[in-house]
Amino acid sequence: MKLDIAVLSGDGIGPEVTAQAIKALEAVAHSFDHTFVFKEALVGAIAIDKTENPLPDETLELCANTDAVLFGAIGDPKYDNNPSAPVRPEQGLLKLRKELGLYANIRPVKAYSTLIDKSPLKPEIIQGTDISIYRELTGGIYFGKKHLNEDGTVASDLCEYSKEEIERITRLAFKAAQKRRKKLTLVDKANVLESSRLWRKVVTEIAKDYDDVALDFLFVDNAAMQMILNPSQFDVILTENMFGDIISDEASVIGGSIGLLASASVGDTCCMFEPIHGSYPQATGKGIANPIAAILSAAMLLEHFDLLGEANAIKDAVEKALELNLTTPDLNATNPLTTEKVGDFIADYI
Amino acid sequence: MKLDIAVLSGDGIGPEVTAQAIKALEAVAHSFDHTFVFKEALVGAIAIDKTENPLPDETLELCANTDAVLFGAIGDPKYDNNPSAPVRPEQGLLKLRKELGLYANIRPVKAYSTLIDKSPLKPEIIQGTDISIYRELTGGIYFGKKHLNEDGTVASDLCEYSKEEIERITRLAFKAAQKRRKKLTLVDKANVLESSRLWRKVVTEIAKDYDDVALDFLFVDNAAMQMILNPSQFDVILTENMFGDIISDEASVIGGSIGLLASASVGDTCCMFEPIHGSYPQATGKGIANPIAAILSAAMLLEHFDLLGEANAIKDAVEKALELNLTTPDLNATNPLTTEKVGDFIADYI
Ligand SMILES: CC(C)[C@H](C(=O)O)[C@@H](O)C(=O)O
Ligand SMILES: CC(C)[C@H](C(=O)O)[C@@H](O)C(=O)O
Repeated sequence: MKLDIAVLSGDGIGPEVTAQAIKALEAVAHSFDHTFVFKEALVGAIAIDKTENPLPDETLELCANTDAVLFGAIGDPKYDNNPSAPVRPEQGLLKLRKELGLYANIRPVKAYSTLIDKSPLKPEIIQGTDISIYRELTGGIYFGKKHLNEDGTVASDLCEYSKEEIERITRLAFKAAQKRRKKLTLVDKANVLESSRLWRKVVTEIAKDYDDVALDFLFVDNAAMQMILNPSQFDVILTENMFGDIISDEASVIGGSIGLLASASVGDTCCMFEPIHGSYPQATGKGIANPIAAILSAAMLLEHFDLLGEANAIKDAVEKALELNLTTPDLNATNPLTTEKVGDFIADYI
Repeated sequence: MKLDIAVLSGDGIGPEVTAQAIKALEAVAHSFDHTFVFKEALVGAIAIDKTENPLPDETLELCANTDAVLFGAIGDPKYDNNPSAPVRPEQGLLKLRKELGLYANIRPVKAYSTLIDKSPLKPEIIQGTDISIYRELTGGIYFGKKHLNEDGTVASDLCEYSKEEIERITRLAFKAAQKRRKKLTLVDKANVLESSRLWRKVVTEIAKDYDDVALDFLFVDNAAMQMILNPSQFDVILTENMFGDIISDEASVIGGSIGLLASASVGDTCCMFEPIHGSYPQATGKGIANPIAAILSAAMLLEHFDLLGEANAIKDAVEKALELNLTTPDLNATNPLTTEKVGDFIADYI
């Protein structure tokens, strides 16, 4: 198979970890006789520095005309505490999601048995946790109308959802549940929000087409508790953009390392894969960033194109690295490897 | 001192646990020579059943003309999964908050050393946790304009904040930080939301008046992680309504039992005290509900009126009950007491 892959490695540790993901994909291409063509483009703070635009037109065009996007990370502290910065790196990411129509962000959360002791949660709590979170990614309060009155004393954001926006991700989530443990939990705040009530109504209707899947509902505040009290109760979680942001980041600590978590953002025509950790500026250039999340994002890319054997080759190599403790300082305090050496081991093992 | 106290015990386990809080207050009145006059009123599902209104006018009037409100819980499963119910118990609570101007919800979160093993988090993670969460309670997306288009296919909720709404709770939070460890963390999503940027701006300005307090900022998704990874880093957390709902419920599991957590909702003229657990319908009438959260809410009421010795008498009695394991089944599986017996012990000890 030939795949054109756009590489947007972005800011902070993005470039370092993305390089390891590419190495893994090249190893797969070699072993399984595929051709992967990588083309790089700018995004985020580095794109602002060079072009004054967090998402230059060339980048968007490249992404729109490629098979898949491999994304690193964006963000730079110099923008974070400046609420009135005219452009921010995040705008690049949000625009990319919107323009490419990446309406579903999919995040697997798993408790690796080799890492069970690293979790802040007790082993008996997280044992068996295996969740797939479906977060709506191009609607809701992130993209609703924003307003600031003239004297800067009243600000607002609109959270709006249409039936169609809810339907398309809901179908993806139900299909995923059918291939898993056949349970879907909708997280909302239907006791307060009109938009949540629409979610509940639409999801309940669509559930009729997937009657082998058990549907239940959880208010977001309760979900935030249940995620810690009993995470293994969840199979597929479906939720809107903002709740998904919060709940999936909360869930990301279960496994003991955010440096392991990958995500896919998919739409009807495009797809993008990225580690969920951010740009982690303090670690930039030190060779201490964990490349596994980026490498597992590459595995999700392969799965998306039904290259399941290939994806498993990556996952097996990752499991091996974890088993042998050939990992970066976040997981191995006494005898750590560098970002690059971990990438080398995984690529060699493939 | 004479205090008029409105009692809104509400639904589910509300009446059972509120009865124990009243018992504790009566014991305090007796020991310290105060007069507390209790007047009951309807709220929630039971109010809908009896009057078709989750917050009858008499209830609102009583609350507006009293020194303090003691609140139990509201909610009934028969409303939860019915998105189109014309009236819901929650509306009563939201209206009460709004009409009484209870703009600040204050929730202490503490790791009790006697309960450290009950937490889903590891002891070394939660040790020393002592947080006070200030959640804005009468603004934001809970009270913003809601809209559903005619054919029911597009729904929206508006999250709006004014400078004044942010200012008043911010000052309370800074004052609280001054009496504590002098650290305040604003939780927001200023990289995406206009309303969050206004929060950041207003809070940064007000911080100048409290220059002995260290201010920092955390995006809500990161806050949801940090609450599990390292909760003892927090002193006072300040946040808007919806984020506060999620983060404070998440934080509530740290201590090992949601049955212990009290809250105060205060405004310029009124105040209300309630356990943070809900109506817990499955437990209603079985004598298994933990009354301690309700009893500690009564202690917060006393603190609000500067009756600190009196509040401590309640807190000491609670500590004693925990130490002797004279508790309900949630904390004592082998030899539990009933709700009432726990209340009796605490009142006697006072
Ligand atoms: C950077 C930010 C805009 C983004 C989001 O909130 O969506 C990030 O937190 C994420 O979850 O991918
Ligand atoms: C019942 C509900 C409306 C309420 C809220 O979300 O404010 C509750 O969850 C709370 O936190 O007091």
